[in-house]
Amino acid sequence: MRNARAANTIEVRVNEFPLAVRRVRERRIVVPDHWAAKRSHQTLAVRRPVQEEVAHDFKPIPHFRHELAPEMGREGDPVRKMSPRRPHPLRKRIEQPMSPSQAEHSKTTTPDTDWKQLAGWVERCDAPAIEAYLKQLSETDRVHDLGRLTADARSELLGLVHPEYAADLIEEMPKLLAAEAFEDLTPDNAAEILEELASDDQANLLRHIEPESAEAILDHTPSLAADSVRGLLEYSEDTAGGRMITEYLAVPATRSVQDVIDEMRANVEEYADYAVQYVYAVDQAGALAGVVPLRELLLARPNRSIASCMVNTPVKVRADAHITEVFELFDEYDYIAVPVVSEDKTLVGALLREDVDELRLDEAHEQERNARGIVGGEELRSMPTAVRSSRRLAWLSINIVLNVTAASVIALYEETLQAVIALAVFLPIISDMSGCSGNQSVAVSLRELSLGLIRPKEYRRVIAKESIVGLINGVVLGAILGVLAWLWKDSVALGLVVGSALALNTVVAVCIGGSVPLLVRRLGYDPALASGPMLTTVTDVCGFFLTLSIATAALSHLIA
Amino acid sequence: MRNARAANTIEVRVNEFPLAVRRVRERRIVVPDHWAAKRSHQTLAVRRPVQEEVAHDFKPIPHFRHELAPEMGREGDPVRKMSPRRPHPLRKRIEQPMSPSQAEHSKTTTPDTDWKQLAGWVERCDAPAIEAYLKQLSETDRVHDLGRLTADARSELLGLVHPEYAADLIEEMPKLLAAEAFEDLTPDNAAEILEELASDDQANLLRHIEPESAEAILDHTPSLAADSVRGLLEYSEDTAGGRMITEYLAVPATRSVQDVIDEMRANVEEYADYAVQYVYAVDQAGALAGVVPLRELLLARPNRSIASCMVNTPVKVRADAHITEVFELFDEYDYIAVPVVSEDKTLVGALLREDVDELRLDEAHEQERNARGIVGGEELRSMPTAVRSSRRLAWLSINIVLNVTAASVIALYEETLQAVIALAVFLPIISDMSGCSGNQSVAVSLRELSLGLIRPKEYRRVIAKESIVGLINGVVLGAILGVLAWLWKDSVALGLVVGSALALNTVVAVCIGGSVPLLVRRLGYDPALASGPMLTTVTDVCGFFLTLSIATAALSHLIA
Repeated sequence: MRNARAANTIEVRVNEFPLAVRRVRERRIVVPDHWAAKRSHQTLAVRRPVQEEVAHDFKPIPHFRHELAPEMGREGDPVRKMSPRRPHPLRKRIEQPMSPSQAEHSKTTTPDTDWKQLAGWVERCDAPAIEAYLKQLSETDRVHDLGRLTADARSELLGLVHPEYAADLIEEMPKLLAAEAFEDLTPDNAAEILEELASDDQANLLRHIEPESAEAILDHTPSLAADSVRGLLEYSEDTAGGRMITEYLAVPATRSVQDVIDEMRANVEEYADYAVQYVYAVDQAGALAGVVPLRELLLARPNRSIASCMVNTPVKVRADAHITEVFELFDEYDYIAVPVVSEDKTLVGALLREDVDELRLDEAHEQERNARGIVGGEELRSMPTAVRSSRRLAWLSINIVLNVTAASVIALYEETLQAVIALAVFLPIISDMSGCSGNQSVAVSLRELSLGLIRPKEYRRVIAKESIVGLINGVVLGAILGVLAWLWKDSVALGLVVGSALALNTVVAVCIGGSVPLLVRRLGYDPALASGPMLTTVTDVCGFFLTLSIATAALSHLIA
Repeated sequence: MRNARAANTIEVRVNEFPLAVRRVRERRIVVPDHWAAKRSHQTLAVRRPVQEEVAHDFKPIPHFRHELAPEMGREGDPVRKMSPRRPHPLRKRIEQPMSPSQAEHSKTTTPDTDWKQLAGWVERCDAPAIEAYLKQLSETDRVHDLGRLTADARSELLGLVHPEYAADLIEEMPKLLAAEAFEDLTPDNAAEILEELASDDQANLLRHIEPESAEAILDHTPSLAADSVRGLLEYSEDTAGGRMITEYLAVPATRSVQDVIDEMRANVEEYADYAVQYVYAVDQAGALAGVVPLRELLLARPNRSIASCMVNTPVKVRADAHITEVFELFDEYDYIAVPVVSEDKTLVGALLREDVDELRLDEAHEQERNARGIVGGEELRSMPTAVRSSRRLAWLSINIVLNVTAASVIALYEETLQAVIALAVFLPIISDMSGCSGNQSVAVSLRELSLGLIRPKEYRRVIAKESIVGLINGVVLGAILGVLAWLWKDSVALGLVVGSALALNTVVAVCIGGSVPLLVRRLGYDPALASGPMLTTVTDVCGFFLTLSIATAALSHLIA
């Protein structure tokens, strides 16, 4: 121990956002409309003064105070302790786990009319009845019933119940509903609830409401907590800093294992709330020096110094690292949490695996929604009709342009169609089937891209592999359709035209479907979003053209 | 402590699958073909003898032996210790984190020809060169290069490198490639690698290869380890038991905190490999008595008994619980791991959050693939063409039947088409646009179902909400298309026919799209899979019918 006095000094910082010298950024955002703002991935326009000294801001937890040496706040090694990450509200259930009958209950759903009763209690401002009712529901039923209330009633409900329980409910609700209800609260009420949330949830919630509302709420939040949230909001949502929690435990590397354990034992209750499974060792400047898993702390000889049992060069992530880097990091390593550091290596937070996993799952679900045409943000049926309608229309209007473009090929061959009207029956079939075949290739390319099995520039390999599958499937499908056409109109020529058009177009569709995601990725766009419409437009054009030009060439046989 | 002698007795069980009296189930599976078997979610046909006594199977870890009291294996409280969950291979990097230059390197990708060099080394059986080459790659590049080898070369490579490194590679590779390469190894080689994997990875790998190959490999595995894997394989892949790990730490509830810490300290190296963050307390019969988070162990006074600081009624999950129950449980609670118990409450394993999250992500990706028509299992382009082609065809052939059915409506109106050939241009547009609109509703319903905001029987609410959006969007889209038709053919009648058909069909499509997922879920099928084709068939039929019947009714205006 290099500093005997420091060894007796334990400094406690609560809710202090330890980015004293971080560059202040100002962001301006354009808010197109009320709802878009709620769902936009913009950060707030916040300005944080550069704080060179933060020591005067320390507010020791009362429980800790008796342990603080008089030298507190001086040069001593700090044991930093942020406000505890709030345990999941339901964690309390551990003391009273579900009895079999309760477990049974959690499977049965409430009658579909019970939420009306809930609405009644909200109207009568009967907070005890609301809490009692909601608490006996399973999470699924709770979310369902809250979802059925009007937006106003949901907001009112949050204002009625105890702030701690309101925070629980906000954590359970779909994010959009939560943000909407939260925004409509009075600022002081919202601030009370905000304080009950974990740091990452605080930031996430405020990111999804209008900047002015967020500022109004933060004005009603104690300045330290508000500064902490403002600090988090400075990071963009798609960076490590934007997703980290600021509740972690940091100790000076010079302390002994026993010191830390004693300290923790003396404050069991505070520490019991910590979700983080690591103790971070910091140097005097607050820079991350190492990581001590709790297990190491438990197993290390008590007289060893933290420095001697910590992992010296821990895996860490820069606060400004993009979230895709974070995903890769958590893929590569098995840790439950990874420390987040600023540019100057100061420890500023921790990223939890569960939060990273949740984010990744959200992205996967978003991709699936994109594939089905819900673009520009999540849609819930409780949103205003105008929002739902206009967002869907934005996507549909791109599609109608593409569709009209593709179908205009048909217009070029009106004469052929007039002569062989049966072709009109097969055009939609060929268009649709080619779209199906092509989409299968899109799916495989998206998968191989995400697994790393294929790189954006390896389109030759994709086309080589796809063309064989396309040829086989094209011949099979073409034969089926050709035979059907032949039997229907008793015309071998029609069968040949339709069958060969489908066969050829299937090959085209799978090759395009396979390579479009690579191209889109290479251009830097999201392949899950853009590949579908690009594919179907090209395959439609190509399918109509093939069918009708082959038919035109074989017109004499078709009419005969 | 109720048993003084027991307090000095520490029993160590290694790789013992503690389901002595579990009901033996026998499963028969039908293996349609080589590849399908690899990807099928079937368990192996295994028969495990009922073991009433397992005590004679104990094989103490050498390191532990000196600590074992002579009474070992008697009635003493067991400290059960399974084979350690292997740390992630890359965890070792913690000692040598990426230097900036390495980090830079991990972003640059290898030249696309480097895998050929790798193939050369495999051919020359140059294990050191292979390992040296692979180890300097980033995980992404490693997966890419391994993916480019032929299936034979991949398998050969696994056989050449050290079994421990082969296990690392298997963990990194896409599951299908890993299983395929693993299956082609000699059974004793495969067994060596198998032993290096964590229990859940062992079971997962064997589930994806042919039962006979799996049995051959298990025959070459030490009997205890093999029994453990066989035990895991008895659980279906979609149950808690099928996904749990059997490496956990269980101690008798009667021991003191200090006993456990001392015991763990004395064997730091073995325990350092444990990923589990909880110590499970068991009673004499092996039933789960409580859970002690490592943090509690660290913070508790050393002289307290485990029983006094454990959570008495911990959240647990039955081994035969379906995986959806597991998802709900991990949603509801924040734990990093949850203990798994058998029917008679015996502790049999632990479910890790990271594994549960991974599974959930896999499901989300599978849903996205389903939405795009890759059904019946994942497809990678390295698979045999026949498999890829036939799987895709299976889906396409359902689609062609549906498409032909829908298009046959057009055939009923040949005369109208003959009279107004321009309609042939609009039929594919109306069909495609309605499909797009309907799919948006499908996406919203799928989302609301998964969030719990809507229940399968609430289709009335869905239709009420959707019909408004459908009406607005239908009118807008119909107006656009109608005006285009009018301008093109200078026929107001054509514009009205086409526009009104699209408008009406959009309403139909969104209502059907919104309610089909609810119906499919209610029937017990996967709505993400079946909703798409059902939707487009109905909207196609309806769209063709609406357009052509309105046109027939207005035929005199259209021709004039």
